[in-house]
Amino acid sequence: MPQPDHISALGIPDPAELDDDLRVIWAKCVENLGFVPNVFNTYSLRPQRLRNFMTMYNEIMLSTSGLSKLEREKVAVVVSSANRCYYCLVAHGAAVRALSGDPELGEMMALNYRVAKLDKRQQAMLDFAWKLTTTPHLVDDADRDGLRVVGLDNADIFDLAETVTFFNLSNRMASATDMMPNREYHRRDRA
Amino acid sequence: MPQPDHISALGIPDPAELDDDLRVIWAKCVENLGFVPNVFNTYSLRPQRLRNFMTMYNEIMLSTSGLSKLEREKVAVVVSSANRCYYCLVAHGAAVRALSGDPELGEMMALNYRVAKLDKRQQAMLDFAWKLTTTPHLVDDADRDGLRVVGLDNADIFDLAETVTFFNLSNRMASATDMMPNREYHRRDRA
Amino acid sequence: MPQPDHISALGIPDPAELDDDLRVIWAKCVENLGFVPNVFNTYSLRPQRLRNFMTMYNEIMLSTSGLSKLEREKVAVVVSSANRCYYCLVAHGAAVRALSGDPELGEMMALNYRVAKLDKRQQAMLDFAWKLTTTPHLVDDADRDGLRVVGLDNADIFDLAETVTFFNLSNRMASATDMMPNREYHRRDRA
Amino acid sequence: MPQPDHISALGIPDPAELDDDLRVIWAKCVENLGFVPNVFNTYSLRPQRLRNFMTMYNEIMLSTSGLSKLEREKVAVVVSSANRCYYCLVAHGAAVRALSGDPELGEMMALNYRVAKLDKRQQAMLDFAWKLTTTPHLVDDADRDGLRVVGLDNADIFDLAETVTFFNLSNRMASATDMMPNREYHRRDRA
Amino acid sequence: MPQPDHISALGIPDPAELDDDLRVIWAKCVENLGFVPNVFNTYSLRPQRLRNFMTMYNEIMLSTSGLSKLEREKVAVVVSSANRCYYCLVAHGAAVRALSGDPELGEMMALNYRVAKLDKRQQAMLDFAWKLTTTPHLVDDADRDGLRVVGLDNADIFDLAETVTFFNLSNRMASATDMMPNREYHRRDRA
Amino acid sequence: MPQPDHISALGIPDPAELDDDLRVIWAKCVENLGFVPNVFNTYSLRPQRLRNFMTMYNEIMLSTSGLSKLEREKVAVVVSSANRCYYCLVAHGAAVRALSGDPELGEMMALNYRVAKLDKRQQAMLDFAWKLTTTPHLVDDADRDGLRVVGLDNADIFDLAETVTFFNLSNRMASATDMMPNREYHRRDRA
Repeated sequence: MPQPDHISALGIPDPAELDDDLRVIWAKCVENLGFVPNVFNTYSLRPQRLRNFMTMYNEIMLSTSGLSKLEREKVAVVVSSANRCYYCLVAHGAAVRALSGDPELGEMMALNYRVAKLDKRQQAMLDFAWKLTTTPHLVDDADRDGLRVVGLDNADIFDLAETVTFFNLSNRMASATDMMPNREYHRRDRA
Repeated sequence: MPQPDHISALGIPDPAELDDDLRVIWAKCVENLGFVPNVFNTYSLRPQRLRNFMTMYNEIMLSTSGLSKLEREKVAVVVSSANRCYYCLVAHGAAVRALSGDPELGEMMALNYRVAKLDKRQQAMLDFAWKLTTTPHLVDDADRDGLRVVGLDNADIFDLAETVTFFNLSNRMASATDMMPNREYHRRDRA
Repeated sequence: MPQPDHISALGIPDPAELDDDLRVIWAKCVENLGFVPNVFNTYSLRPQRLRNFMTMYNEIMLSTSGLSKLEREKVAVVVSSANRCYYCLVAHGAAVRALSGDPELGEMMALNYRVAKLDKRQQAMLDFAWKLTTTPHLVDDADRDGLRVVGLDNADIFDLAETVTFFNLSNRMASATDMMPNREYHRRDRA
Repeated sequence: MPQPDHISALGIPDPAELDDDLRVIWAKCVENLGFVPNVFNTYSLRPQRLRNFMTMYNEIMLSTSGLSKLEREKVAVVVSSANRCYYCLVAHGAAVRALSGDPELGEMMALNYRVAKLDKRQQAMLDFAWKLTTTPHLVDDADRDGLRVVGLDNADIFDLAETVTFFNLSNRMASATDMMPNREYHRRDRA
Repeated sequence: MPQPDHISALGIPDPAELDDDLRVIWAKCVENLGFVPNVFNTYSLRPQRLRNFMTMYNEIMLSTSGLSKLEREKVAVVVSSANRCYYCLVAHGAAVRALSGDPELGEMMALNYRVAKLDKRQQAMLDFAWKLTTTPHLVDDADRDGLRVVGLDNADIFDLAETVTFFNLSNRMASATDMMPNREYHRRDRA
Repeated sequence: MPQPDHISALGIPDPAELDDDLRVIWAKCVENLGFVPNVFNTYSLRPQRLRNFMTMYNEIMLSTSGLSKLEREKVAVVVSSANRCYYCLVAHGAAVRALSGDPELGEMMALNYRVAKLDKRQQAMLDFAWKLTTTPHLVDDADRDGLRVVGLDNADIFDLAETVTFFNLSNRMASATDMMPNREYHRRDRA
């Protein structure tokens, strides 16, 4: 049988009955992406929380930052790899492929980022992401200094940290709700 | 020497130079709590991100939900215990003491929630919080069904999950920035 | 820069200088697959060991068994997921996609097999594979009985165990040699 | 309901029926502390073992040593933090607050000692305590040399080791018996 | 070169200069065992602590208890196996061989007790020993009830717990001091 | 009761009914060793797989290599120690005792190799074996360089890696089948 058979284990409301502002967003997603990301469908069970999630997501992943969008997507995928989050690995793995134009790099980030040959800045950021995800209580000044050495200033470190922590949030929402990624992600930017 | 010697390892802006809306919030905090929580000071390095954080926090912890405020605070503390997050254990440990009127219960949540004698609903929620925090990739239908058995509906499970995931975010921001809790939390509601 | 920049961290001999029997196999690979799998290139540093590896691989993965070839490939991918082995996840993830005709199923096996909806036989086999990989010292009669309940006889359990153990060998050879998968695997059977 | 509802999950004998020497100790505890520590009540199920425990405790924690009493109490709390032992964290957390006059330092030791700013001697001792508690099989000459560098001689290392190991004993007795700390500890030395 | 080259990494005093009571014990050991156990040599660096250690050891391992001496030795070896303590595995592995007359059983306890075919009482005691050693914070009423079901009363559970916790102490003293077992243990009771 | 009561939890065929080539091997084992190793009995359930296993084993453990036979046996035991594999620890522990003439060294390898005093080459090889066994996804260029520094060339590293990975295979076959070692191993080369 083809996988999967649901969007969220907690069920989702009928999109036609959502508030106007959300239906506008749904329509834009279809226009731009061809589909509504299932994370939005899942969160629409609690509309105000969806709005907050989207606001935070847009600020962290799309606003101006010392970290490029590709860097942020790589961090997202490495965090999701540490947490073995199926939804985020599929959706953001596609984003790394799209932004980098390097499908193998996307796979490396998802499966074991240590096999990639990275410059020192990328390596330091991804090592920090892994440590902050898996053993946050061990993060110390030496870790922050390791980021400064490769050129990150305090605002950059803040943005890196927030990217890591945001995916620690969203990975766990996906696991808690058994959230399934839209099929379209799988095939994108493979060539 | 008395601990600690800083608020955030990334530094904080001069509060007098914050945007008007934030200065209003700072003043309200002083009025209501006697101090500005250091998590706000830490986030003020990136003002728009602070606004988003406060909006999400207020919705998750203070809005109407099938989970009581005390239940949400217990979840916050148990997640922070799993992650050994000093800031959140101090700040939300105080909240559990205040809301429950039981200082020992607050300590139990912070140090090892398994020693507390809890009813089945609380036990199931805290076990779920621990598992979703420490091994999110292992959460499955049996875990969700365990919550349903003790009376949680899908919206309740969503709210529980979001509380857990939010503190997995904020715990890691505290660790990433070496955020120190305000001293006032330590002494509150100990009697 | 495109990834990766090598086949094996230990270097590989010039294929033109390999023994005749190996050059025949190389030619067959090119004819059938379009390329020589890099695991063969890596092992060719020690030709007799390559021959033994191929013999064992063919018997375990391709010979008659109570486990179907797709079942064996799923086991291979789940073991490689537990060990976070980039090479094997890429190469055998492609095999699951090819044999199942279900690209999403391949991704699920590679990223977190617990998100897949599986029948009891598959579930039991993959749970056994994960446990035998990550905590072999805890495997006991209850685990073997769990396989018998879903219909495996002693020869089937032997074949399952050998598949699991073989990939615990090959995953570690890939990690020890930083073995990089051939690019062709990435794009195969994605549609 | 207020926590907890018992002293030891294994029950305790009637204090009035204890041997004379123990009743004298009980009386002294009440005189000096205001209560009999529940660890004594718990151990009184096996009186000779209680006597041995008290003798060893007094020698390790109170006798002359190259480690100050506060240093030994910090070690006790860090070991108990690693083991998440509720009883010892409450009882010895109070001792760190009392001896240091710094309530925040006590909380730091209990919740995550790495957030404290410590001199090199303290840092080395607590890092050793954590490692010897959580991964004793990995302790090696480099760890002992790290203690020597900050000024510990062989007798000091012995005393440090014995403090660590004693709390690995008592933490587990508390967990095995679900030993509950006396309420009085919670409020002491918070100001 | 033959192993090992020392008794304790912290050095040991000249036995001829020990206090009279200790020299009497040394002489008795030589008379009864043929040698002075190196744990005594190691502890003699701090004579009073040695006396306390011997008193506690004798009470726990040799006094009257609901657990037989062989049962206590098995527990000692399983705890030492969990902690990978070379000294205690060698010394108490020999004791299991001697008391049981079954050299293979001694090896099983030391290497992986789960491979032994045990009656329910032994199995429950050893499972409890492993859990209390490796994850003390997870021990709960269900674990104690599991011991009651196989016939242990509260005093037996206390004695079992104390045996487990004592070897969590002595294993770590051995690791902290790199304590080497006397050679004589290796060959004893192998036939 | 004496341990154990079986050879393999999956049963073994009647040796008298094995194919001729295997019966010749059985006879040679009895002639040379005094018994047929139970790993052969276990594998004989699937005769072709036994043949492949023996071929691979002989090449890895007995053929010409930059690693001595004793070095390979030490690696085998350390891998088996990490995996807590009873069968391989007993069988290959005996081999280390036999080849080294140092029974204590064999015990050290089996129980905790870190207590042995080793030259740099041995230490580096065993540290690599432990890491490749327990966290293969973390092995990187620094680990390979650490081997080169102590004199291993690429073929040596390949042979070391294959020894490690082969015992990760055979340890798991032993655990999966509850394979019991022949009694004869226990007593050999103890003096």
